[in-house]
Amino acid sequence: MTVKERISQLRQLMMEHNIDAYIIPSADNHQSEYVGDHFKSRAFITGFTGSAGTAVITQNTAGLWTDGRYFIQAEHELAESDIQLFKTGNAGVPTIKEFLDSVLSKDSVIGFDGRVVSVSEGQRYEDFQIKYEYDLVDSIWQGRPSLSKEPIFLLDETYSGESTASKLQRVRASMRKAGATAHLLITLDDIAWLLNFRGRDTDYTPVALCYAVVTLDVVHLFIDEEKVSSDIKKQFEEEHILLHPYNDVYNFISTLSSEEVILLDPERLNYSLYHSIPTSVKCVEQTNPCLLFKAIKNEIEIENIKKAHIKDAVAHTKFMYWLKTNLGKEVITELSASAKLEEFRKEQEHFLWPSFAPICAYGAHAAIVHYSSSQETDCELKEGSFLLTDTGGNYMEGSTDITRTVALGSVSKEMKRDFTNVLRGNLALSNVTFLYGTSGQNLDILARQYLWQNHQDFNHGTGHGVGYLLSVHEPACRISRYKSEETQRALEDGMILTDEPGLYLKGEYGIRLENELLVRKDVYNEFGRFMRFEVLTFVPFDLDAVDIELLSDREKEQLNTYHQQVYDIVAPHLNDDEKDWLKIYTRKI
Amino acid sequence: MTVKERISQLRQLMMEHNIDAYIIPSADNHQSEYVGDHFKSRAFITGFTGSAGTAVITQNTAGLWTDGRYFIQAEHELAESDIQLFKTGNAGVPTIKEFLDSVLSKDSVIGFDGRVVSVSEGQRYEDFQIKYEYDLVDSIWQGRPSLSKEPIFLLDETYSGESTASKLQRVRASMRKAGATAHLLITLDDIAWLLNFRGRDTDYTPVALCYAVVTLDVVHLFIDEEKVSSDIKKQFEEEHILLHPYNDVYNFISTLSSEEVILLDPERLNYSLYHSIPTSVKCVEQTNPCLLFKAIKNEIEIENIKKAHIKDAVAHTKFMYWLKTNLGKEVITELSASAKLEEFRKEQEHFLWPSFAPICAYGAHAAIVHYSSSQETDCELKEGSFLLTDTGGNYMEGSTDITRTVALGSVSKEMKRDFTNVLRGNLALSNVTFLYGTSGQNLDILARQYLWQNHQDFNHGTGHGVGYLLSVHEPACRISRYKSEETQRALEDGMILTDEPGLYLKGEYGIRLENELLVRKDVYNEFGRFMRFEVLTFVPFDLDAVDIELLSDREKEQLNTYHQQVYDIVAPHLNDDEKDWLKIYTRKI
Repeated sequence: MTVKERISQLRQLMMEHNIDAYIIPSADNHQSEYVGDHFKSRAFITGFTGSAGTAVITQNTAGLWTDGRYFIQAEHELAESDIQLFKTGNAGVPTIKEFLDSVLSKDSVIGFDGRVVSVSEGQRYEDFQIKYEYDLVDSIWQGRPSLSKEPIFLLDETYSGESTASKLQRVRASMRKAGATAHLLITLDDIAWLLNFRGRDTDYTPVALCYAVVTLDVVHLFIDEEKVSSDIKKQFEEEHILLHPYNDVYNFISTLSSEEVILLDPERLNYSLYHSIPTSVKCVEQTNPCLLFKAIKNEIEIENIKKAHIKDAVAHTKFMYWLKTNLGKEVITELSASAKLEEFRKEQEHFLWPSFAPICAYGAHAAIVHYSSSQETDCELKEGSFLLTDTGGNYMEGSTDITRTVALGSVSKEMKRDFTNVLRGNLALSNVTFLYGTSGQNLDILARQYLWQNHQDFNHGTGHGVGYLLSVHEPACRISRYKSEETQRALEDGMILTDEPGLYLKGEYGIRLENELLVRKDVYNEFGRFMRFEVLTFVPFDLDAVDIELLSDREKEQLNTYHQQVYDIVAPHLNDDEKDWLKIYTRKI
Repeated sequence: MTVKERISQLRQLMMEHNIDAYIIPSADNHQSEYVGDHFKSRAFITGFTGSAGTAVITQNTAGLWTDGRYFIQAEHELAESDIQLFKTGNAGVPTIKEFLDSVLSKDSVIGFDGRVVSVSEGQRYEDFQIKYEYDLVDSIWQGRPSLSKEPIFLLDETYSGESTASKLQRVRASMRKAGATAHLLITLDDIAWLLNFRGRDTDYTPVALCYAVVTLDVVHLFIDEEKVSSDIKKQFEEEHILLHPYNDVYNFISTLSSEEVILLDPERLNYSLYHSIPTSVKCVEQTNPCLLFKAIKNEIEIENIKKAHIKDAVAHTKFMYWLKTNLGKEVITELSASAKLEEFRKEQEHFLWPSFAPICAYGAHAAIVHYSSSQETDCELKEGSFLLTDTGGNYMEGSTDITRTVALGSVSKEMKRDFTNVLRGNLALSNVTFLYGTSGQNLDILARQYLWQNHQDFNHGTGHGVGYLLSVHEPACRISRYKSEETQRALEDGMILTDEPGLYLKGEYGIRLENELLVRKDVYNEFGRFMRFEVLTFVPFDLDAVDIELLSDREKEQLNTYHQQVYDIVAPHLNDDEKDWLKIYTRKI
């Protein structure tokens, strides 16, 4: 069936349901960052396979909205269709709502599958009449992949550091404080964190499709029973976790007694579920308590995470050695290098799978911030430019996220200057001491200051939270110069953030240097509570790319201390050749 | 009449008016920073003369709320009264509202003079019944100082850089955009800026008591006619500025036609005037357009301000020379030094009067951030500690605000380290290049970072806006780590801010180093619009207090460049001895 035929069938169904415009986003029922194949309806209908994009179909028009990362790919993939590409962010390009306002009358009917649309997005269309009950793509999509059946696994306390009972106690304390009798959760990482299990229903984030309703004495967990082994069932029973079929949550919520008071987070809820709540039931809308709880890692998690980072550092250092010593001797491409790095990670104990889609970008490709190499774009690595790798692993001891940029052969003076300015920003941020109450928005400039002095910038945030064997893009905290709930939140002891300044020169090269930082308490005195960062990542910054002249004595000292730590931590896990190489690449400058 | 007698008379009047609690703040009708003697009702009733504090009187209780700056003074001044001191900010101390809630019933009546209470403060008490029409202090206060009769004077375009007509055009454009037919203004600096006049109704800020209502074709100016010379009247007439008696504004507003739409800023309005608006009149509440207009200085203002700063630098450098060469030879005290500095300023052309209450604090006194020397606290300056002066002048070419800390004799290694860390923060902030959109909250950390690294901090903002021959604490922009409208506002080309990190060690010493910075456009390129600061203040940082070892090469270079500029700008205005001295104090390090 061609894209045209699919759209034609969809239009037929829209007519039958009296729907004037049908919206198909790129999302699952849980507002997840990575979605399983079952949820790729927009790709099925339009043929556009990028991870971000929304299709809007009317009887006369078909449009796809996506952002700058995907313009070229979308143009290519939509070429055979009649679908118009709307380049979000470009001047004069209407938003979906503006487009709908221009082609529909006020009494028109908008349709979408309310399970894959967030509350706030759905509310944007409420000028029109809304039908959110129909997943029209489902009946067209023959051979639609079924929902994943991957089994879940438990994290015992040696990994999680806190029992489910204890976590539930904390959540219930928040519920009581809010006067709530029930708490509705759809975000998969929150449920996995709270109930100490993990799954594999997406390619990267180790979570399982499920919903949860926490009451003051039990937890209703809505999940495909096939995923839950009998051992886990037994443990769940002991923890008063009651199993229900995955899709029963909608009915469960719609039949709640009017005496219930539900604590929910409208920013983290889908439109259908929100509208399943009987109007007689009172809702207390506030940030999901798990959001902050899971962002603040406990001491056992922290000890584990440090182990995961050592494994990651060993794998990454071996890769760097392999790359530096084999370039020019064998053909290495972006894809083969990426595979090699994954190989080194796989050699590490308790490695599960990559924590996100790896970026391995050479030369001008690295200037595309979200570049992902494919058979079409793959290229051979040659001397004279940078290779940027932004990769990470899921280990039982935690998830990692690291970016290194490596000079292949010798690089120009300007490239070294740019690399050094990015490095100086990374070092300045990781070295800061700050008073409690300081937020990511206060800190951001430390990572940008040297680039700004050179009239350069990077067009992304400086750092994001990282989960414990969960999402590597965890909300709660964020380092960015823009105002948001996340960038304004005080950094707390036990939070983990990335430190990843970069520089991207279109058509030339890209640089990004990313470490993970752990927030720790420092001195308390008459001025208040001071905080500092502890670096978790131990992989050399490529000295071949540094212009030492540009570093101050303090920066040299900081870099030397870091490299000494890298050597001390990583060397015991290397063979003699690798060790000799690392000695040189962590030398005092 | 004793304080007890005054309060007794006030209670009598409260009974007559059926008022259960009467509130007397420290404010004039215009929410001004400095108030004239006529408005010092709280000082009259309580005997407490500090600039900040609020009295609350009931039939059984009398309380005074003030903050940490005034605890000692208030204890002293309230000693003979029955007034209880409430130390705002101390643990367990109730706010005024909490106190009222605890002693009054819900049907009680709160009274205050609504002209001296802001809209937001008045609204805080609206749980109770409110009577805001009575200034009960007035009839008790025999010999109350009358309102100032000081004449106003005009600023012609060589000083203001923009005609009243042009400014009105801009304000009216904002009014039209908001759909307003009238704009009500009570903030004295906004009216003075808009109509290009200045006054002397307060000790420091050169403004005159008045209100204004701007319509789409005229301006109603409510001001004591005696203050307006016939020449100015003539000019006002040409500009369609109609004069009304000062107090007529309340009646004027209360008789507005219901067809009017008033643009007003509830943050900058008094409670009485707000409640004078007929309920039939529509209000558009938004930030006063003048707020941002006057914060962005025009090129003529900027040229003038630079001249004012040169004069200020000459006066300040002469003072520094005099202090360094005469200490130990004659008795110098905080008050005599302060007088000497003012003398040097008075020698400068077009000097009017100080722009704010000068701070001249020696040794441990300087650790009290808002210390103001008096006959009781005055002390002799001796070798071995710092003298901190935070002073400024009003010149026809603008207002200045500068703080220097000077080492008297030789000071300890720790004192030098602390001075150097404050200096490094000052230099780092003034040296930053930043993308347009950056706000004071983003920049603050640059001034604090070196203190924080040493586990120290200063408990005040890093910088505030400065007016053009207006308030030296001008809103619109502010550098602080805390979130507010002002700290979140993007810095615009033409804004002027202070850069004033400090350090205060209780019982030991205080350091503050303050320059003024002008925001300027820098390079525009593919990364966006960059901005930078231009330093306006040219007075040496005392090299006797610097630990050169702690400065990086870049910092030394920046300091040397600054000192070279200081010499080049100031030396031509000095005698030979002063010049020789300055050569040494601006030497290359």
